[in-house]
Amino acid sequence: MSSTDEEISNYLPGFKDCPRNLKVAYQGEPGAYSEAAALTAYPDAEPFPCGVFEEAYEATESQKSDRSVLPFENSLGGSIHKNYDLILTHDLHVVGEVNFKVNHCLMALPGTKKENLTRAMSHPQALAQCDDYLTRLGVIKESAEDTAGSAKKIQEENLENVAAVASERAATLYGMEILDSKIQDDSSNVTRFLALAREPLPPKEGVPYKTSIVFANKDGPGSLFKALACFALRDINLTKIESRPLKTAPLAEGLQDSMQFQYLFYVDFEASMAEERAKNALRNLQEQTSFLRVLGSYPKDVSKF
Amino acid sequence: MSSTDEEISNYLPGFKDCPRNLKVAYQGEPGAYSEAAALTAYPDAEPFPCGVFEEAYEATESQKSDRSVLPFENSLGGSIHKNYDLILTHDLHVVGEVNFKVNHCLMALPGTKKENLTRAMSHPQALAQCDDYLTRLGVIKESAEDTAGSAKKIQEENLENVAAVASERAATLYGMEILDSKIQDDSSNVTRFLALAREPLPPKEGVPYKTSIVFANKDGPGSLFKALACFALRDINLTKIESRPLKTAPLAEGLQDSMQFQYLFYVDFEASMAEERAKNALRNLQEQTSFLRVLGSYPKDVSKF
Repeated sequence: MSSTDEEISNYLPGFKDCPRNLKVAYQGEPGAYSEAAALTAYPDAEPFPCGVFEEAYEATESQKSDRSVLPFENSLGGSIHKNYDLILTHDLHVVGEVNFKVNHCLMALPGTKKENLTRAMSHPQALAQCDDYLTRLGVIKESAEDTAGSAKKIQEENLENVAAVASERAATLYGMEILDSKIQDDSSNVTRFLALAREPLPPKEGVPYKTSIVFANKDGPGSLFKALACFALRDINLTKIESRPLKTAPLAEGLQDSMQFQYLFYVDFEASMAEERAKNALRNLQEQTSFLRVLGSYPKDVSKF
Repeated sequence: MSSTDEEISNYLPGFKDCPRNLKVAYQGEPGAYSEAAALTAYPDAEPFPCGVFEEAYEATESQKSDRSVLPFENSLGGSIHKNYDLILTHDLHVVGEVNFKVNHCLMALPGTKKENLTRAMSHPQALAQCDDYLTRLGVIKESAEDTAGSAKKIQEENLENVAAVASERAATLYGMEILDSKIQDDSSNVTRFLALAREPLPPKEGVPYKTSIVFANKDGPGSLFKALACFALRDINLTKIESRPLKTAPLAEGLQDSMQFQYLFYVDFEASMAEERAKNALRNLQEQTSFLRVLGSYPKDVSKF
């Protein structure tokens, strides 16, 4: 074992035992957009579908899967606070990010004519994103658990003149014919997924890294300013900052106990936790916070849309 | 006219002419949650329903209404970027905020038995928020334009064994019987509405004020830190900070032209623009930004849930 390998093994216990063919948990049925995002992050992986977000966290925690890929942010809807809450109650590390552009397709049983459609089924968020299109089409919009699950149901129950709004892959998987694609009202809809693993990721030379943290300040005027000074003084650039406006249950144990804070902050910065300056910044930050959690360091997704 | 009155008139041109019975624009049908939020802000107002968000902005801009009350933030879903985009393209000022707790009710034609229900209709967001409950109920979830509009449709078309998920007021307005209430899966769901007017609001003595701004930094390391220094140096407390992660159209004209920035920031701080220290802070901030817009100063909503 070379010294670099040894270093990595020290930094990342268990990485050596990581299987070559990863199993990647996501929320939804096969053909879901989350599955496509998971396969964008890990093209050779075996996707592992989970019913709800919680299951997708537990799958990797309990070693049923190796990674969990979950949505944390949307360019139209903002941060998905539910996943920020769940990550704080689970023992997983962020090891990657994927900016994924959703492309909604209208699909039905082969041979269906668009003008004969009476209903369109999909996840409520997808229906909302295609609302103008579906209203013009004049169909009943039926809310379902899942985008791909709707295509599956149409196939299984042989539902005539019913459409699903789902991904191209869902059409292939469930033998649907695509009647129209890119039917979303706003074409700028990008979702940011994070990949989670049981162990943190070792840094790679020459790859730009980001680190995501969550913290709660001790009370006092200018406390956020002092917190950001930890990064500014070390020329570490922030790529995201967000105050969590209102407390909601469930929170992580340490948080529930204290509750002295008014706000949680989500911050992403451009450095890896393997860098001395990042370690120093966080040591400095810790003096000023009542709660601090490093969610993980990971290679920056540099996709352009 | 007293000197204070004169001062206010100077600060707020046209306030004298503001009608006593305000007309308040909101998005949705009568009985919508937005209407309830509008009436929480202005209890004596005449609600003015609008089909889409854009219409609710234009109503006040074109003097069809005196205020527009719109949702900007949700405790589960995060900031509603669409309304942050729209406010930048309209000439309106924030004059108030309302933190509104949504309480979903299940309703149907009078005499309907819950066990006979086959379908539940509502806005996709409301269906998603009651997903566990509706799944247990075993009904088809039908996506509609509007929560209250679903109740209206059931009444108008006399739809038997079909339920709507909507507000208590919608049940009253459309002659529905409430079969169950507080059916949302997560009880901590609070939406923050902002009230908009053509003229800014004059400050009131002894009332805690907040100011909302949007800005884009000039590029450079530590630029956000320097921007926040403008507030920290004057002991002005921030209550919200959020970076807008990805650019989406449409943006305000000034923004589209330059586009030199990488991020937009939404900041709320605890001071009124009538205060000298707030004016100084913003003068200071302006030196560092490529875009800065004061959305408005308004009394802080101090509701506890």
